[in-house]
Amino acid sequence: MPEPGLRSDRLPPGSTIGVLGGGQLGRMLSMAAAKLGLRTHVYCDEPECPAFDVCAERTVGGYTDLDRLTAFAATVDAVTYEFENVPVDAARHLSAQVPVRPGALALEIAQDRLAEKRFISALGVPVAPFAQVDNAGDLAAALQQFASPGILKTRRFGYDGKGQVSLVPGDDPAAALAEISFAPAILEQRLSFTCEVSVLVVRGADGAMDFYDLPQNTHAGGILRRSVVPSPLGPAGLEQARAMARRIAEALDYAGVLAVEMFFMGPHGEPPLLVNEIAPRVHNSGHWTMDACGVSQFENHIRAVAGWPLGPTVRHSDAEMVNLIGEDARGWPELAADPGALLHLYGKRQPRNGRKMGHVNRLRPRS
Amino acid sequence: MPEPGLRSDRLPPGSTIGVLGGGQLGRMLSMAAAKLGLRTHVYCDEPECPAFDVCAERTVGGYTDLDRLTAFAATVDAVTYEFENVPVDAARHLSAQVPVRPGALALEIAQDRLAEKRFISALGVPVAPFAQVDNAGDLAAALQQFASPGILKTRRFGYDGKGQVSLVPGDDPAAALAEISFAPAILEQRLSFTCEVSVLVVRGADGAMDFYDLPQNTHAGGILRRSVVPSPLGPAGLEQARAMARRIAEALDYAGVLAVEMFFMGPHGEPPLLVNEIAPRVHNSGHWTMDACGVSQFENHIRAVAGWPLGPTVRHSDAEMVNLIGEDARGWPELAADPGALLHLYGKRQPRNGRKMGHVNRLRPRS
Repeated sequence: MPEPGLRSDRLPPGSTIGVLGGGQLGRMLSMAAAKLGLRTHVYCDEPECPAFDVCAERTVGGYTDLDRLTAFAATVDAVTYEFENVPVDAARHLSAQVPVRPGALALEIAQDRLAEKRFISALGVPVAPFAQVDNAGDLAAALQQFASPGILKTRRFGYDGKGQVSLVPGDDPAAALAEISFAPAILEQRLSFTCEVSVLVVRGADGAMDFYDLPQNTHAGGILRRSVVPSPLGPAGLEQARAMARRIAEALDYAGVLAVEMFFMGPHGEPPLLVNEIAPRVHNSGHWTMDACGVSQFENHIRAVAGWPLGPTVRHSDAEMVNLIGEDARGWPELAADPGALLHLYGKRQPRNGRKMGHVNRLRPRS
Repeated sequence: MPEPGLRSDRLPPGSTIGVLGGGQLGRMLSMAAAKLGLRTHVYCDEPECPAFDVCAERTVGGYTDLDRLTAFAATVDAVTYEFENVPVDAARHLSAQVPVRPGALALEIAQDRLAEKRFISALGVPVAPFAQVDNAGDLAAALQQFASPGILKTRRFGYDGKGQVSLVPGDDPAAALAEISFAPAILEQRLSFTCEVSVLVVRGADGAMDFYDLPQNTHAGGILRRSVVPSPLGPAGLEQARAMARRIAEALDYAGVLAVEMFFMGPHGEPPLLVNEIAPRVHNSGHWTMDACGVSQFENHIRAVAGWPLGPTVRHSDAEMVNLIGEDARGWPELAADPGALLHLYGKRQPRNGRKMGHVNRLRPRS
């Protein structure tokens, strides 16, 4: 039995956090861990990945290679992940050896849009109307029921707008399903909202919870383009948004940063806020915290994974974050010379179309 | 010939910066480079060093091993260093292959207290009265000349108060010299000053220059304990301090962050400021910039080394930095739980006496 009040799983400096995934989020998690004197071991299926440049140990391996995952687990004191498509079996397998935070339940829910919507709805947290779509008949019925435009989304492996088709009543269901290769899907009603925001909630391994200020998010082509803090939400909206995120984080017995994307329907909307989707990880809409807060989302995620107390989420400045996508990154010389631009680049070799290459934060005195 | 206005040596993201030395400064330099999409290759003579946890490539090698240095240089696009006792020959050797910033001249001057004092004096920048001490006769004569207390300091390899002996007129010169093993030395007159400050000047590879706000520094046992920004210097003092640092940086044709430690003799002192010593590198008294500025001293040093434009040095907050020395680091659980403490730990295994293990920054709204 651990002594009362002393968590046996607070990892001391010098411990090693295993990170599944080697993209930019893994890179920034590794740097945040290093700030706290923690080492990282990054596990990635690609030999050239952004996180490998800043970690103490590296493994190149597949996410279904249980032998390699076992060997990885033996070298680390806790495991986290930087993307939500880590196979649930891998997380379960690892959790037999070391704490995995956030846990497998969060992964499982977040990997299936239908399960996610049902889980959130069942908590009494509003979501946009949705329907399960397994075939053209389901889709036709759902479109008729909503009697308004909808978005067909694959249940699995969608990100950055991939696997989505917009359609209006009267469109050919079979053609829309063909666009997503007849994958199991859901139809969501398309609603007109005032703006998109996200709640970045962090929950410690001990259940303590805190929230960053909400950014207002702008997407273009399905990809997050810009996040601005503060958002236009007033105190009542903020309170409600946080209560919604809190309910989800608690129901998942979550540890780490959880991003809850929401639609704000306006100050007089009823309900004023709906959950769009959740991401069980640090999130692009929280990158402004790297420069506008003393403790970033990455550090707070690591603190939760390591069983540490959470750090303050307060922002000292207002902030705007703009993603550098694909060819945007070629503008680095101008951005480096711009005294208002705080530049973050991810070390990716090729600026492929739609690829997130970096981001720029701009601060203003706190409003 | 490079095109006018286009520096051929502006290293693009993905380039590799070689860092000589793997201590905490090398660690924080590596993380700053990664923020800009630059890789680091750390060269250190110890196999377990803080910077090895956050760099893309590592070499364990001696600083006089020219073959290994040659191989290291072949893998990098520019070289910098994190401590001023890198052998000048190593820097010269490397500079035949790649740009070394700051250059060998800064190292050479900073490695010899006598050369440093003479160099600075010759620029018309005030320093405390000093005398060359090669033997007991020199020391006796200097003490008599100053007719006041002095500090005997070895010319080389002194840091954190090591290699220093305080003495007053009438003390036995031979005994004092024995304490420093009769190493070549200087005697500096001990002056009573109002406070210690440091100028963190950054100079780009193109000669552009900028300054961080001056911290007031407090030492204990010869080791920096605390830096507070802003310092008590008024506008005239600040202007003079910057002009002094500027003169030194220009005379060294410096690239990177240069720390110039000064004694402030008070608002009515004549001269009001004296240079104590310089460090041709990022500096402990600049660690507050990691949390109180958009661009830290580490990032600006890397920008200069990479031939990039400098980033803004403006602070968004007032700050206090306190070093965690030796056993202080055992207080990490309390510091991690302190919402006012921004904690930085260096990943060092053993909290040896006098060893810098980390630091804590505390911010306040800008005054």
